[in-house]
Amino acid sequence: MSDNEKTYEETSFEEIRDRIVTLLDAKKYIRAREALLSLNEADVAEVIGETEDELGIEMAIILFRMLPKDESAEVFSRLSADDQTGIIARITDKELKSIIDEMDFDDLIDVLEELPAYLVDKILEKTTKEERKLINTFLNYPEDSAGSLMTPDYITLKQDWTVGEALAHIKKVGMDSETVYTCYVKDRGRRLLGIVSLRSLVTRDEDVPIAELMAGDVVCVNVYEDQEQVSEDFTKYGFLAIPVVDNEKRLVGIITVDDILRTIEEETTEDIERMGGVIDSSDKEYFDSGILHQVKSRLPWLILLMASAMFTGLVISHFQLQLEKLPSLAIYLPLLMGTGGNSGSQASTLVIRGLALGEIELKDAPRVLFKEFRVAIITAAALSAINLGKIMLLDHQIFIIAITVCCSQMIVIVLAKCLGGMLPLLAKKIGVDPALMAAPFISSLTDTFTCFVYFSLSTMILAHM
Amino acid sequence: MSDNEKTYEETSFEEIRDRIVTLLDAKKYIRAREALLSLNEADVAEVIGETEDELGIEMAIILFRMLPKDESAEVFSRLSADDQTGIIARITDKELKSIIDEMDFDDLIDVLEELPAYLVDKILEKTTKEERKLINTFLNYPEDSAGSLMTPDYITLKQDWTVGEALAHIKKVGMDSETVYTCYVKDRGRRLLGIVSLRSLVTRDEDVPIAELMAGDVVCVNVYEDQEQVSEDFTKYGFLAIPVVDNEKRLVGIITVDDILRTIEEETTEDIERMGGVIDSSDKEYFDSGILHQVKSRLPWLILLMASAMFTGLVISHFQLQLEKLPSLAIYLPLLMGTGGNSGSQASTLVIRGLALGEIELKDAPRVLFKEFRVAIITAAALSAINLGKIMLLDHQIFIIAITVCCSQMIVIVLAKCLGGMLPLLAKKIGVDPALMAAPFISSLTDTFTCFVYFSLSTMILAHM
Repeated sequence: MSDNEKTYEETSFEEIRDRIVTLLDAKKYIRAREALLSLNEADVAEVIGETEDELGIEMAIILFRMLPKDESAEVFSRLSADDQTGIIARITDKELKSIIDEMDFDDLIDVLEELPAYLVDKILEKTTKEERKLINTFLNYPEDSAGSLMTPDYITLKQDWTVGEALAHIKKVGMDSETVYTCYVKDRGRRLLGIVSLRSLVTRDEDVPIAELMAGDVVCVNVYEDQEQVSEDFTKYGFLAIPVVDNEKRLVGIITVDDILRTIEEETTEDIERMGGVIDSSDKEYFDSGILHQVKSRLPWLILLMASAMFTGLVISHFQLQLEKLPSLAIYLPLLMGTGGNSGSQASTLVIRGLALGEIELKDAPRVLFKEFRVAIITAAALSAINLGKIMLLDHQIFIIAITVCCSQMIVIVLAKCLGGMLPLLAKKIGVDPALMAAPFISSLTDTFTCFVYFSLSTMILAHM
Repeated sequence: MSDNEKTYEETSFEEIRDRIVTLLDAKKYIRAREALLSLNEADVAEVIGETEDELGIEMAIILFRMLPKDESAEVFSRLSADDQTGIIARITDKELKSIIDEMDFDDLIDVLEELPAYLVDKILEKTTKEERKLINTFLNYPEDSAGSLMTPDYITLKQDWTVGEALAHIKKVGMDSETVYTCYVKDRGRRLLGIVSLRSLVTRDEDVPIAELMAGDVVCVNVYEDQEQVSEDFTKYGFLAIPVVDNEKRLVGIITVDDILRTIEEETTEDIERMGGVIDSSDKEYFDSGILHQVKSRLPWLILLMASAMFTGLVISHFQLQLEKLPSLAIYLPLLMGTGGNSGSQASTLVIRGLALGEIELKDAPRVLFKEFRVAIITAAALSAINLGKIMLLDHQIFIIAITVCCSQMIVIVLAKCLGGMLPLLAKKIGVDPALMAAPFISSLTDTFTCFVYFSLSTMILAHM
């Protein structure tokens, strides 16, 4: 966890970054190094990433080698997976060993998860047998689980210590742990008895027993818990760290808030991309992923949506006769499909977000339906009134078309809102990510029933005129 | 900042919550109170919210009054704005005074920002003149600025102190500050000289001077900085707290990571809702916002999109003759509009997210365009091939329709992807939120040019046959 140290004035970072790249390009290494060393680790990592983008990996490695030994591990863990791979493949064994030795355990696991197999082996060769065993255990947790986020570097206190003894212990081991701000007390079976905050330690007298400060019944997460649930717990409770336990309730590690911030970013990206019709299981950045990878993450969804759009075509071809009789019906089709699709995605977006935040639960389905229904009635009435005026006064269409379009619009909006509200709940019920059901899919569905409602209604009204 | 204390086993919370509501409904207050007191503040707040939803505000207040005095302020600050308003309007002045006295300063500001004016006055009456002045200063910061998130309750250390003196000071004032884990050193002009982490204090010897531990050149944010930028800084650097300075670089407050977690949730919700075509400036929960509020946040966008869909109608009516000659053209319109819209929103979603994360910048426009172009070519070729086969073999359409549909699809996908990639950058350039340009707007735009391309192409091909 970063303690805010080794940092600089925030306003000028982008200028510094671009200046370093320019200096490197002009081979002015000494001045580039000076500028680089004025930055903190997160920013150095960004400069190296930018250098790789603009000048290639060889130049990025020159920059990376300029770093002092104790900083390079921290910087390395913040680089993108591609840059890490490029660097490991090119540096000497000695350099690699020193990076691995300095790196935090949870960062090392993160790096190993993203690397190609032959480089993982190269790294494992540099670790001791004991480390290798621990690494293998950690690598076995599923990628999005609490286990993959946690670190075993936490501080354990003994229940029968005093505050003074605890502080002496922290002074000894504090620099190597991921956090010193929350400490853990275990029983003999390694089960978590309680936690002690450093705040309570430094504000109490030396001779107070730990047992008195310790908070029991701690919120903890299972090692296989999904990381999305873990980040919800952090947001809800405002924790700095959360203990991770196995199925026997034994403490196996902790997750700190800084790692959760990055996880939240990843989870949000995944949700937003899914809602935009992009399925991407990797967390590569936009420019880091190749063209074919992009095609792979977009094409399946487009094919599926094209297939569902074919149903809409089927509906239209079914009503072909009607369209030949009254070709101007086609003019209003995009308008109806548009408002239907948008009404539906508004509803589904709100419900998907509500589900993600825990504001809406499965049992709320009737309430959601009733709410969407009422919103839909008002929205539909307003839009149809505007539309009726426009069709009659501006388009000078015959009344039958105006009334068909507006009645269809009313029905379509109500159906779309109700469906948009219900589909994410259905998805949740059957265990599919509700975000996958969002905008694109709702649009295809509303398109189909829009055509059906529109042409059916026009047939009916025409028959009665 | 919560130190993880007063908590309980996580798995059973939803059962406990529902049990408390049931107990209250059966008027079994003593047992409800017992169950309530086993929970931590965040969960108690959730139980009160749920009670208000299910049994009304009066019952929620009964529950709120069951809380011990020192807990009620913390719980109160975590309630929804509606519940807070309901409670303040109904409790006695004495109860209100004790809540205000116990509440953290930044939480009090949050509450005041959401309350109706007559209740703000009711609260201000209960504060001292000095507090009132400070509150008014804080309330004057724009709602989404760093100033509105910060707290003045931080620990200041003197540069000429030793570690021992610093720890003694923290012991004295630590319980009243928002965080003790990062302390601040100022010069005489109240400008920030540097920061000292509690970790470095507890791991060093008592006689080490503070000046030696202090990290200078600290990353800080301006008091008017947008909260989205602040949360990016937290994610990038992994901070626990960030100092906030005014235009003269004087330290005016700090923002802690727990408040940022809630902000990230709000910002994410806003982005996702905008991308789904919902404009909602309040951060009310789905069920807390009334029907009319929902209509207000959805209708303007729908009207705008309906207006833009009318252009598509205009294009179709322009080609009406063409449609009468070849009515089966209409069958493939939804398919083309669908793939166009979806291709466009995939591109815009990725670019919007890339912009939000700082992976994509304005200067990257040519790279984005080139990338989207290449992805589009491959995607378009694949989809058109599938489509050609389907139209010829399954629909048994004449060749002219098949070739028109597939050529149009190719052009539409390429245009949609390039446009989808460029529009968010254009939005950013002119200072509009890129998320506003997303899915719904891109769809309307692609609809219009899809019709244009499709009918133009069919006219041209038909003329040459």
